[in-house]
Amino acid sequence: MSAHIIDGKAFAASVRSDVAKDVQSLKQKHGITPGLAVVIVGEDPASQVYVRNKVKQTSEVGMNGFHFEYPADTQEEEVLQKVHELNNDPAVNGILVQLPLPDHMNETAIIEAISPEKDVDGFHVVNSGLLATGGKGLVPCTPLGCYLMLKDHLGDLSGKKAIVVGRSNIVGKPMAQLLLDASCTVTIAHSRTKDLPAEVAQADIVVAAVGRPEMIKGDWIKQDATVIDVGINRIPAPERGQGKHRLVGDVEYATASENAGAITPVPGGVGPMTIACLLKNTVTATYRQNDIKK
Amino acid sequence: MSAHIIDGKAFAASVRSDVAKDVQSLKQKHGITPGLAVVIVGEDPASQVYVRNKVKQTSEVGMNGFHFEYPADTQEEEVLQKVHELNNDPAVNGILVQLPLPDHMNETAIIEAISPEKDVDGFHVVNSGLLATGGKGLVPCTPLGCYLMLKDHLGDLSGKKAIVVGRSNIVGKPMAQLLLDASCTVTIAHSRTKDLPAEVAQADIVVAAVGRPEMIKGDWIKQDATVIDVGINRIPAPERGQGKHRLVGDVEYATASENAGAITPVPGGVGPMTIACLLKNTVTATYRQNDIKK
Repeated sequence: MSAHIIDGKAFAASVRSDVAKDVQSLKQKHGITPGLAVVIVGEDPASQVYVRNKVKQTSEVGMNGFHFEYPADTQEEEVLQKVHELNNDPAVNGILVQLPLPDHMNETAIIEAISPEKDVDGFHVVNSGLLATGGKGLVPCTPLGCYLMLKDHLGDLSGKKAIVVGRSNIVGKPMAQLLLDASCTVTIAHSRTKDLPAEVAQADIVVAAVGRPEMIKGDWIKQDATVIDVGINRIPAPERGQGKHRLVGDVEYATASENAGAITPVPGGVGPMTIACLLKNTVTATYRQNDIKK
Repeated sequence: MSAHIIDGKAFAASVRSDVAKDVQSLKQKHGITPGLAVVIVGEDPASQVYVRNKVKQTSEVGMNGFHFEYPADTQEEEVLQKVHELNNDPAVNGILVQLPLPDHMNETAIIEAISPEKDVDGFHVVNSGLLATGGKGLVPCTPLGCYLMLKDHLGDLSGKKAIVVGRSNIVGKPMAQLLLDASCTVTIAHSRTKDLPAEVAQADIVVAAVGRPEMIKGDWIKQDATVIDVGINRIPAPERGQGKHRLVGDVEYATASENAGAITPVPGGVGPMTIACLLKNTVTATYRQNDIKK
C-alpha cells in the first residue's frame, strides 16, 4: 500500500471554506448574498438525503437557501412555472432541480427551462456546449470536483495521458472535456472498448466512472498514476454480518493502491466534492450575474 | 503503395445525389423546397470561392439558394438584423454566415443569433451541446463528412480505436464526439501530446486535423488503419517551377499509403465532403422544421 490517499472530505472542506470567504466578500463589498434554490419533486429517499445535505451546507457557507418540495404527482407545468419564477428572481443565483424526476415529467424540458446562467448543475445544453467549445459556462459538479482534486494534487496537467472510463453526460463526457482543456492527451473508454487493461495501463491519470464495482483492476494501473474513482457501489458484505453491505468504487482499491501514486478512497473521495462544487458554482454564477470580477 | 484511396469527390457526389433525391421527394410529397441562405461580409478571396461553390451546388441539388453580400465595413447590427429576418423566414431552412467575419464584428454573437434549428454549420452553442450529450442537433460539416466516409468505408465503427489529432471546435472536438457516439475508443491528441507517434501507432482510425503539412509521418500509421486527412496545406513546390505551390495534407501521404488500409488524398478527400454535408444538413433541418420523418 504505497499510494497517497486523496482525502476528499478534507479537500471538500477547503473548497467550502474558500466559497465561504467569497460569500463573505460578496456580502461585505457588494451587499450581495448568493442564493441557491433547490427544487425537489417526489420522495426518492436518496434524493431527500442529498437535498438535506445541500441545504445544510448552503447555510454553513453563508448563502441563502431556497427549498421547494412538490409531491410526486405534481404537474410538469407547475414545476416549469416555479423554474421561470426562480429565473426571474434576483435573489436566486443558482437553481437546481433534483433528478430523477417522476416518470410523467420531461426532465430535459425542465432542465432546459432553467436559465443557463443559473444552471449550477451544469446540465443545460448551453452549458454542455460551452464546455465542449472552451467557453465560459457552468460545469457539472462531479467532474468539476474530480478536476479540482487532480489540479490540487498534480498541479499542471498539460501533456499528461489521461483515461476516462465511462461516457455518461453527467460525468465521463464533461470530465474528458475538462482534461482536454487542461491539455491532457485524453482517451475515453467504455463498455465497447476492446482492451481496457492496456488502455488503463498507459494512463498517468485514471478517472473511473462506470458504476460497476471494482471493475478496474489494481494491476492495470500504471506505476505512480493518479486514480480518481467516481463510482459508489453498494455490494453485499457478509463478513460484516448477514444482509450487511459496504460501499466500493469502480476501482479495485486495495490492489490499485499498490501501483498508484495517489488514489481517492470510496467513500470519502469524490463524493464529498459534489456538493462543494455545487456551492462553488453558485458563487461563480453570482459573480458573473453581477458582473463582478473575483 | 497498398492503401485503398478513398475518393472524396465521388463519395461527395453520391451524398449530393441522395440529397437531390430528398429534395425531390420534399417537393413532390410535401410541396416544400429546402432553402439555404448564405451571408457573406467582406471580400476574403477564399470565402468568395467557397461561397460560389456553395451557391452552385445548392442549385444543382434543387434547393433554393439565398445569397446576401455585405461590404466589409457593414455594421454588426445590420448583419444581426438579416439573421433575425432569415430566422423568421419559412422559405429559409438553413442559414450560414461565412467565417471569418471582419474584425469589428463579434463572430460569436452573430453565430449565436442564428436559430439553432437553422444553424447548418453546426457552430451554435446549442448544437455543440447537443452533440456533446448525444442529442439531435446539427453537426459541423467537415467532421460530419469525415464520419460519413468512415462509416461508408468501415461499416460499424464500434470498438475501434480512433485517434483525433487536433482539438479545434470546428473539426477535432466534434469529430471526437461523433466517433465516441459510434462507440469507438477515442483518443484526442494535440500539440501538447507527449508521444504522438506511439499514440497514432495504436489507432485503427486516424483523423488528422492539425493544419501542419505532413506532420503525421507515414511510418507511425498502424498496418491497415484508415486515415482521414483533414489538412489542406499549401507548400512551395519548386519542382513545378519557380514560385509554384502544391497542396498537401497533415499526413505524409506517400509513406502513409504503404501502411494504411485506406486513406483520403489531399486534395480530393475530405475537402469535397464539406459542402455536400452542408446540403445534407439543410435537408435534415428541413425535415425537422416541418416535422416530417424521412
